[in-house]
Amino acid sequence: MKPALIGVDWGTSSFRAVLVGSDGGALARHESADGILSSAGRFAEVLAGAVGGWPGAGTVPVLMSGMIGSRQGWREADYVACPARAGDLVLRLAEVAAPMLGTVRIVPGLSTRDGAGRPDVIRGEETQVIGALALSGASDGLFVLPGTHSKWVSVEGGAIADFATYMTGEVYGALKSHTILGRLMAPAPSTGEGFRRGVAAGAETGGPGTLLNRLFAARTLGLFGELAAGDIADYLSGLLIGAELRAATAGRQAAFTVIAAPALEQRYREAAGVLGLDCRPAPADCALAGQRVIARAAGLFA
Amino acid sequence: MKPALIGVDWGTSSFRAVLVGSDGGALARHESADGILSSAGRFAEVLAGAVGGWPGAGTVPVLMSGMIGSRQGWREADYVACPARAGDLVLRLAEVAAPMLGTVRIVPGLSTRDGAGRPDVIRGEETQVIGALALSGASDGLFVLPGTHSKWVSVEGGAIADFATYMTGEVYGALKSHTILGRLMAPAPSTGEGFRRGVAAGAETGGPGTLLNRLFAARTLGLFGELAAGDIADYLSGLLIGAELRAATAGRQAAFTVIAAPALEQRYREAAGVLGLDCRPAPADCALAGQRVIARAAGLFA
Repeated sequence: MKPALIGVDWGTSSFRAVLVGSDGGALARHESADGILSSAGRFAEVLAGAVGGWPGAGTVPVLMSGMIGSRQGWREADYVACPARAGDLVLRLAEVAAPMLGTVRIVPGLSTRDGAGRPDVIRGEETQVIGALALSGASDGLFVLPGTHSKWVSVEGGAIADFATYMTGEVYGALKSHTILGRLMAPAPSTGEGFRRGVAAGAETGGPGTLLNRLFAARTLGLFGELAAGDIADYLSGLLIGAELRAATAGRQAAFTVIAAPALEQRYREAAGVLGLDCRPAPADCALAGQRVIARAAGLFA
Repeated sequence: MKPALIGVDWGTSSFRAVLVGSDGGALARHESADGILSSAGRFAEVLAGAVGGWPGAGTVPVLMSGMIGSRQGWREADYVACPARAGDLVLRLAEVAAPMLGTVRIVPGLSTRDGAGRPDVIRGEETQVIGALALSGASDGLFVLPGTHSKWVSVEGGAIADFATYMTGEVYGALKSHTILGRLMAPAPSTGEGFRRGVAAGAETGGPGTLLNRLFAARTLGLFGELAAGDIADYLSGLLIGAELRAATAGRQAAFTVIAAPALEQRYREAAGVLGLDCRPAPADCALAGQRVIARAAGLFA
């Protein structure tokens, strides 16, 4: 099959490139931990080292998505305001000149504002969601891309209508490593019970500030011997994920789709099960599928 | 005036002792940063060094409150279950033998459970609240003791009826120093506007998980130039305090009283003003006043 596109998903801590054939299939793959943090100052070198030897390199178009288009990346790409479709993104592709590879395009991020006018941003997740839509044939839905920052993306009529960031993963890490909550945690095997109890506790009703109160239970339940030391970290994780799930799905009836690596996807599915929410896994390779859609809309790929 | 009592308020990071005369007034004071963390293993020495030279030392009773009675302190004192009055506390005083000072008593902490049965604890704040009641003549009220952990204490008919811990201060520190939210913060002078905006944002309605979302605004408002770099830390602080105030006062009409050092008291009063809540400062020396009440109930002081 003839090489037709190089798609690169370049995030904060990972690099993934795929050589796409004219039928859309993968002819070659390269994955590494050369995320933008460790590649700063040598982006052209990392890219050429990964894909420069592929057949067609230098003649086939290269399209990148992810944090490579952030202020800390190779070149800052715009944020396109929601609602947005692939056709809106291609109007704002950023370009960089890469030795031996020619002009490389970077997919812009998206911006939105919440009900109170506060801005929010995503970069990279828009491409994954566009890919998930293409792979599933859906034109509406709610997607979550969990991680350091969980991104909840709402799609209506084929356009990304809105989204919201929940700092769940990063808050978990900061609380576990840098507050009193980590003191009683032990690396003992988790029973799984801590996670489920945490999810239920996090999802209880109450205002935003009640989270600051419920967190303390991850200490007191340990102090009172009502939660095993090996379960405390999972309780905290469950508390935050349960609170996130309840808030992000409030007022919505439909199922949501998780786009994540298997371990994290399983964690969100388990939490959804505790709360009786309908949660589905996304197809594999969403980022690549989204890059194909965007490249096609840009006339870079047939 | 004749020395009649030595009252010690010994917290995690501070030590405060007062020599009390038979009329209840202070004859001498000693304050230092010898909290239980830095005094571990030499509590007797620190105490003797601070108060051993006072007139009457060795003959007047010594009563201590605060984290000195915790598992990390000199001796772990019990937790007395709410509702509790001074008379309940004196039945569970812990005792340690101090060279030259004789038997030293430690005030127990309090425990309670929230609506879902999760335990909560305080240690030291019970004595301050009992003191605030004695100084004001009140027998009902809502008190907040802000800090690393904000303790909201509810008093009914002269008894401490219930309380709840909000991890506001510690969460603020962990998020500021160990998440992406600290990146855009600058030590530039704050305009004060960031704090007020944060308080209002934190107090908006929404479930517990919405806090994980609103936190991200402390980054995006900075990214979009809609919040000055010098205001971002205050915005985060306001967001957490606003959320705390809204949650802790939900369903209550009455004023609340702040027991805190002046800078922190001012911060909570400003936040209460933004939200239209009725907030009052406590009298000074609440801990000492509470120690007098408890010592009297224990027959240690007339």
